[in-house]
Amino acid sequence: MTLHIQNAWLPEQGLTQIQVEAGRIVAMGTDLLPPPEAERLDAEGMAVVPGFVNGHSHAAMTLLRGFGDDMPLMEWLQTRIWPAEARLTEEDVYWGTRLACLEMIRSGTLCFADMYWHFHGVARAVEHSGLRAALGAVMIDVEGEKQARECQYLAEKLCAEVKGYSDRVRFSLTPHAIYTVSAHSLRWVSAFAARHDLPVQIHLAETQHEVEQCLRTHGVRPAVYLDQQGLLHANMVLAHAVHLDDNELDLIAQRGATVVTNPVSNMKLAVGGVFPYRKAAARQIPIALGTDGAASNNTLDMFQNMKMLALIQKHAEQDPTVLPAEAAWALATGCQAPIFGQSGRVAVGEKADFLLLRHAVPEMTPHHHFVSHLVYAATGHVVDTAIVAGRVLMRNRRVEDEEEIRHEVNARMQRVCQVSDAWQNR
Amino acid sequence: MTLHIQNAWLPEQGLTQIQVEAGRIVAMGTDLLPPPEAERLDAEGMAVVPGFVNGHSHAAMTLLRGFGDDMPLMEWLQTRIWPAEARLTEEDVYWGTRLACLEMIRSGTLCFADMYWHFHGVARAVEHSGLRAALGAVMIDVEGEKQARECQYLAEKLCAEVKGYSDRVRFSLTPHAIYTVSAHSLRWVSAFAARHDLPVQIHLAETQHEVEQCLRTHGVRPAVYLDQQGLLHANMVLAHAVHLDDNELDLIAQRGATVVTNPVSNMKLAVGGVFPYRKAAARQIPIALGTDGAASNNTLDMFQNMKMLALIQKHAEQDPTVLPAEAAWALATGCQAPIFGQSGRVAVGEKADFLLLRHAVPEMTPHHHFVSHLVYAATGHVVDTAIVAGRVLMRNRRVEDEEEIRHEVNARMQRVCQVSDAWQNR
Repeated sequence: MTLHIQNAWLPEQGLTQIQVEAGRIVAMGTDLLPPPEAERLDAEGMAVVPGFVNGHSHAAMTLLRGFGDDMPLMEWLQTRIWPAEARLTEEDVYWGTRLACLEMIRSGTLCFADMYWHFHGVARAVEHSGLRAALGAVMIDVEGEKQARECQYLAEKLCAEVKGYSDRVRFSLTPHAIYTVSAHSLRWVSAFAARHDLPVQIHLAETQHEVEQCLRTHGVRPAVYLDQQGLLHANMVLAHAVHLDDNELDLIAQRGATVVTNPVSNMKLAVGGVFPYRKAAARQIPIALGTDGAASNNTLDMFQNMKMLALIQKHAEQDPTVLPAEAAWALATGCQAPIFGQSGRVAVGEKADFLLLRHAVPEMTPHHHFVSHLVYAATGHVVDTAIVAGRVLMRNRRVEDEEEIRHEVNARMQRVCQVSDAWQNR
Repeated sequence: MTLHIQNAWLPEQGLTQIQVEAGRIVAMGTDLLPPPEAERLDAEGMAVVPGFVNGHSHAAMTLLRGFGDDMPLMEWLQTRIWPAEARLTEEDVYWGTRLACLEMIRSGTLCFADMYWHFHGVARAVEHSGLRAALGAVMIDVEGEKQARECQYLAEKLCAEVKGYSDRVRFSLTPHAIYTVSAHSLRWVSAFAARHDLPVQIHLAETQHEVEQCLRTHGVRPAVYLDQQGLLHANMVLAHAVHLDDNELDLIAQRGATVVTNPVSNMKLAVGGVFPYRKAAARQIPIALGTDGAASNNTLDMFQNMKMLALIQKHAEQDPTVLPAEAAWALATGCQAPIFGQSGRVAVGEKADFLLLRHAVPEMTPHHHFVSHLVYAATGHVVDTAIVAGRVLMRNRRVEDEEEIRHEVNARMQRVCQVSDAWQNR
């Protein structure tokens, strides 16, 4: 089945038609004729742009959005998040991830990397939503060897079972952090990932506390310690990377690991410090942008997260020229982080993953600089149409099952959080 | 004419009907009967909340949105903003302000304070848009006495002419800053404002450079200098207030002046430092939130600006408990700054200025905490209906003249910025 898009506007190039077959862009130009049997889509008044890559999320945490804000980190985790998470079932996680995917589609994210519990709940939701994602089941072995063996068994099992999903669902290993996973398990992850050519995601250097604990326990800083366990290489994704010194940045650059910065979550949780973007970019470290979970953000709209990234970096460096609009846009669409497999380009031969944006809106007026408006003025609400692998996931801002997803999540959270629904019982 | 609103949901109180007469809320409750001749509005599925107060803006600078970003402050002003502003006519400013008002209505701002050139262009736009605003013509006398006398003459003239507008348009004096207005003119402003009971808006302590220059020239810091000119009192609005020491905060608190923080603009221009919110709040200084002009923001959506305020304060204080959602919401709706005349309450006896929000959206799911969702998850796109003085300015997200405003602004900016329109000539 061919998808033929007419009258799309490609910024800096002009009007074009786009032909999609078997999930890829096969032709673009002004003089394309739609095959008679093609599905046609008129993009009059819309710009075609690549989708966002959300490099770090805990998608199902949409379930806990607003269930505790403005609290000290440990109090928030211990009194709100962990008790609620302990009550979540795989079905809850399925619906929470559906909600996250719905929100991502509506705000232009087409590919994400995730780390959470109840793997198949997450994977089924990604499959149904139509997005692409690299998923992993959280590994934590603070309880000791038995827990470590369970995590390893689960990873082996999931690595096989994931073949039952489409190629949009990629499996990755997700050890939680260096302070929640033993050195032995980290080395197991390193070996297993190498054997199966799997990407590995881990939280690293999010807080100063983590750095101090690592220095105290292991005598080295977090990136060095991770390297010692065989987990600093081109298949590694390091989430947060706030508290890194120059030596660690050099090491990350040498090893080719990817860093994902989560500026909104870092600010909301007040982790102290800011990801050293300028130093990392100067070393050509691959960099992506993430939202983290919705409980610490609380939106998955990458437009907002992209703007915050540009702002906090300018603020931190006291230099308004840092991370100009074009750089922020490239970073947020995955151009600087090849590991996520999105090129950030809408071009012949690329995957048919892209957005149609309604730019004739007040906040994108006047017509001075399109990319500036994307980064500094727009929100996810300008996304009209979202396409992944040639499949139309949203058209005219309508996504299948939206009502059902919202109702399911509201009903489930009344049970999980053991509260009545003040909005419904009004 | 009575406006009767049915089925509105008042957070924390429940369903209510609202009756509006002569611009005020005259009755609320579940058992109100609509008068037979009343205009009826069904708010089924919507929450009623107060509108935002944008405490500092240069509304017509929507004209220059995206016309220069990511540049050092002085280069940006000298090579982009000032040359373009010099070519603006009153009609340009009228349309730029119409665009700003359109954007504000669509994102929930119902009252703003403004400082710009071509006063009547701004005032006519406010009048036509239906919003409330305190407006002033920029006073700058760096060229000397002749310019000072022209500014004074203009202020006197406008103070009389403003009576030709409705009571939604308030006149204020707007000396630009202590480094662009002479001590003699500042004292004139002080006397004239006292004589006519006018509010005064000024930029203060935006950059460290301003502080150093003030110390060098006058031997005291900016707030002390302003006080010496008779311009620190309860009718004063101080925009930015980033670089203040404890003594200045004490003085501002004693005098009762209002501070307006503009976190997004401050970060985008990288002015260095952060408004000392915690210290100001501890001294009970009246505080409001502003966007500054769209050229340095680049959105007038107060939802986003409110979230950024909460985030940058948590980040700066390294404390996630600073500015919790309820405090950010109160601040952004004008509760902490009585000078703007908005109570931040939807209640009998108050002005009929409020919003109806569509909260049944993915980003406000699930139903844990309504105000948290407003501050951390929503954008201006949840605003369905905007009402000022009982007049419906937007319903179902439709504002009168939207298309015309966008087209006028685009056409005018091709002339002013002397560029062809790359979006139109595609």
